[in-house]
Parts: sequence; C-alpha cells; structure tokens
Amino acid sequence: MADQPAPIQVEDGDFKGWYLSPFHDDYVNLIGPFYYQPDENGQMRVALKVEQRHLNGGGIMHGGCLLSLADTALFIIAMDENKTSGGVTMQLDAQFVSPANLGDIIIASGEVVRSGKSTIFVRGQITTNDTPVMAFSGIIKRSSRSGA
Amino acid sequence: MADQPAPIQVEDGDFKGWYLSPFHDDYVNLIGPFYYQPDENGQMRVALKVEQRHLNGGGIMHGGCLLSLADTALFIIAMDENKTSGGVTMQLDAQFVSPANLGDIIIASGEVVRSGKSTIFVRGQITTNDTPVMAFSGIIKRSSRSGA
Amino acid sequence: MADQPAPIQVEDGDFKGWYLSPFHDDYVNLIGPFYYQPDENGQMRVALKVEQRHLNGGGIMHGGCLLSLADTALFIIAMDENKTSGGVTMQLDAQFVSPANLGDIIIASGEVVRSGKSTIFVRGQITTNDTPVMAFSGIIKRSSRSGA
Amino acid sequence: MADQPAPIQVEDGDFKGWYLSPFHDDYVNLIGPFYYQPDENGQMRVALKVEQRHLNGGGIMHGGCLLSLADTALFIIAMDENKTSGGVTMQLDAQFVSPANLGDIIIASGEVVRSGKSTIFVRGQITTNDTPVMAFSGIIKRSSRSGA
Repeated sequence: MADQPAPIQVEDGDFKGWYLSPFHDDYVNLIGPFYYQPDENGQMRVALKVEQRHLNGGGIMHGGCLLSLADTALFIIAMDENKTSGGVTMQLDAQFVSPANLGDIIIASGEVVRSGKSTIFVRGQITTNDTPVMAFSGIIKRSSRSGA
Repeated sequence: MADQPAPIQVEDGDFKGWYLSPFHDDYVNLIGPFYYQPDENGQMRVALKVEQRHLNGGGIMHGGCLLSLADTALFIIAMDENKTSGGVTMQLDAQFVSPANLGDIIIASGEVVRSGKSTIFVRGQITTNDTPVMAFSGIIKRSSRSGA
Repeated sequence: MADQPAPIQVEDGDFKGWYLSPFHDDYVNLIGPFYYQPDENGQMRVALKVEQRHLNGGGIMHGGCLLSLADTALFIIAMDENKTSGGVTMQLDAQFVSPANLGDIIIASGEVVRSGKSTIFVRGQITTNDTPVMAFSGIIKRSSRSGA
Repeated sequence: MADQPAPIQVEDGDFKGWYLSPFHDDYVNLIGPFYYQPDENGQMRVALKVEQRHLNGGGIMHGGCLLSLADTALFIIAMDENKTSGGVTMQLDAQFVSPANLGDIIIASGEVVRSGKSTIFVRGQITTNDTPVMAFSGIIKRSSRSGA
C-alpha cells in the first residue's frame, strides 16, 4: 500500500464531490470504480452505482458484488486504524436484507468495533437511499512478518 | 432461470471435462467464467482460475472475488433442491483460512444442510490443490410470490 | 408468549430501576435473571451481572453465556416488531471483542435492521462500562402455522 | 487447563461409554454436564441431553443453550491442535436448522479447517438422531503472552 496515488475528486455526475478509490487493486478496477468520502463525522463511506454488469440472472445486483463492496469497505472503514500495517480479511458475515437494483447508488459505511494488536473488528451496512441493503461484520487480520 | 442454455463441456486446457456455468448472469460473466462439474458422489463443484484481474493490491485474490465464488456456489450446491423456485441469498458467512494466488485453480464444493419450505441451508469450502482457502455457509431464501 | 406476567421493577441494588425479564423461560431462569430497560430512545437493553457460575475454566465469562445473552437479546430488541407472532432464531453470528469478567454488569442493546413478513434482521452489541464485549447479528424467523 | 482431572467414563444410562467433560468450568457445570467421546475416526463428539431447564418459553431448547454447546465444542474439536496454549473464542456463527426437543440427546461434532500460529478455524454441526439441529463455525484465538 506504500505507493498509492493521490485520490482524485470527481467534478460532476452522480459522484460529484466523491473521491475515486485510491487503491491499486485489479479486482476493484474490474468491478468498480468505487468512490469514497468521509461523512460529517469523519467516518468513511464507499459507493458504487449498480450497472448491468453487476446483475445476476434474476436482474438484481449479484450477492457477490455486494459482498465485494462489503469486503473492500472493511478496510476503508478501518483505514485510520490500519495505516501502517496492511492486512487481510479473516472473517466476514453478511445479512442480505433487500435487493439493490439497476441504477441504484449503494453506499457502504460503518465503524471499528475494536482495534487490537493483531486484529480489527469492523461492522457496517450498505444502504441505498437510506434503505438497508446489507448488514455486515468482519475481522481484519493485520499484516505481520510472523505469519498467521 | 427458465431460459438457461445447455451447458458446454470444455474440450481442452485447465478445465478439460468441466462445464461452463449455465447461468445468464452478467456479474458471473464479468468476473468468470466459472466452471462446474459433479464430483464422484454427484455433488457439484464450481471452479475459477485466479487471474491478474482477480487480485487485490496485495497481490493475492481479492476477498470479494472469493466471496463471489462462494455466493454463486451456494446456488449450484443447492441446485437439486431448488430446481423450480429460484431464490436469493439471505445470509452468508465466510472464514478466510489461506490466500489464493495468481494461477491457482480454486474449487468450491459443499452440501445442503437442510432444505426447508422457504429456506435452504448450505455450507461449503473453497480449496486449491486440497488446501483450504475459505469455509463458508449461507442461507438461500426461495423465491415466492408473497415476498420477504 | 400470551401468558407472560407483568414485569417487576427492581427497587434497589445493582439493577435498581431495571425490570426483571418477563419471559417464562426455564433456560433464562437457569442462567439469569436477565434485567431489561428501554434507553432514552426507547430501544431495549438487556443486562446480566457476571457471577462465578458464568465463568469458564479460564476465569472469564464463558462464550456460551455471552451468546445466550445475545440470542435472548435478539427477541427483546425486536419485541415491538414481533408482538403477535413469536419466533425462533434462524441464524446468529458473534464477534468476541473483549472478555467479560467476574462482577461486570454486561448490557446487550441493538436495533432492528429490517422487519420482513417472515424474518426479522437484528444486530447489536454487548458492552460493559461502554467497553465493547461482543458484536452480534441474527435473523429471527417469525412463527407461522406453515412451518420452515 | 493444566490441572484438569482425569475424565470419568459413564457406566450406564443414556451416556454409557461416554466420558464426563474434563473441564473445571463453572458455566458448563451450570448448564451441563456435557459428555464426550471420540468417534471411529478419532474426532471428538460432545453430547448433552435436553432437559426442562434447557427449554425456552416456546418449549424447545433455548438457542443460547445450543450456542453454548457449539462454543464449547469448538475447543473440544480443536483439542489436539491446542494442547499447550489454551485460547478464547474470537468469532462464532451458527445456523439453526431445526429445533431440539425435551429428551433429545444432541451431539456436536466437527473438524479443524485450519490450525494457524495464532488462530484455529473450526466448523461443526449439532445433530440429534442424525437430524441436523445446527451448523456452526468459529475461530479460536490461541492464548499468548502478547495479548490481542
């Protein structure tokens, strides 16, 4: 994560004022872009607009795409706790409470429940127009030289 | 799901003998293709080869991509229980036990724990070369006319 | 649930002002009593004092006892959504973020994420002196005559 | 865990041939006793008979009691991987697939998914007469001098 570019602020369109995700991350580039922005309390939010390519055979956003946003959001929510160490997801669970539909802008947000020496506990939610789409929680394992 | 094409069996390469995923599914087309094949006991397995586009900034497969495979696998594992009804994921949880790396062929498999009237409980695992990568479980909500 | 007694308000001691759990519930009577009280926003809180009988061999509260409080709290948090129907837990997950110790008063609280026709999604946390002990989420399946 | 008594084998009744749980554990003593026995493959099973005191207000075993068995079983399933270090539950999730009723003998069993340096990933199930009651998975954090 040492060599991330400076974030770029979007100047117009649906995501005006949001920043483009700063990660060099092939997978996020494949399914994204993701946009991010702190809320009024300084907590990070991550957004994605539902496009045709995100849909499943039933015509709603694929669960895997929602999970991908949740998994990415864990690290963005925990960014302040994890500046120097990187990390990997150790565990994630998610409740799918309502579908996301084509054209929706979905936003992930959340909080660090506890930041420990080797792990960070995070939980959050994905909403669209304040309707809950998913609740999720996860554990980040901080990177270390000594392995798992 | 009524109008799925016949599956196509792969004739050579890494996935010789496997079938291409039969789903009309834009998201799976975006991150896939996924391949599938029953094992010797008739239980379905779903496979994906880790490519550069699946990697995160740390150079391993993005957790969201693993979760996307797991979420898709829920439905393929439960296919025999769910032929006529369709469904959506209600809940999924996952333990990330070791990373998947560029070039790995990762395979999801599992079992139906219980098939009820409105829900199907599934659990499974993703492995590469018999090394566990992820353990997951999930609940499918069957489709119905009466909603959630 | 039709025949619950009126709740009793505690007049002194650690739980002065709290109510005794109104449930005819042998298991809660075995490990409890649990106390409950709405907070200033009307959201229910459920409390338990950690006694010797709640400890594991390591001298901290047994994880199963924390989970028992969480599982019970799901229904108390969802009480307003579930007045007439009863229900059972369909799924629960929990992150254990720090231990509860002998003498601690631990308090479960939370919110309904979504209340649907057949399920209620809840999430919450257990804290002691505002320190997080556990984060949890769960799905209640409403009771019905037609079964699972 | 250094000072556990030798296990006692039960000589008659429902649990003939099973061993009494070897743990000095007040909470298990409160809700138990638990019985344990290796199966034909050497994997540990943990059993409990459903009594009136384990029931909820609906007349089935309280979810918290099932969760308590699952949480305890994590450590018994992982016993061979964890002989010298002790540990605490870091995360647990459970799917409640069918109820346990008064008089049922319920049995938890499972497997270690991965045993790492600081964590052990376990999953298992609780059954009664081969009917699935619960599927669960969890992460044990090994004890260490360096803290969380």
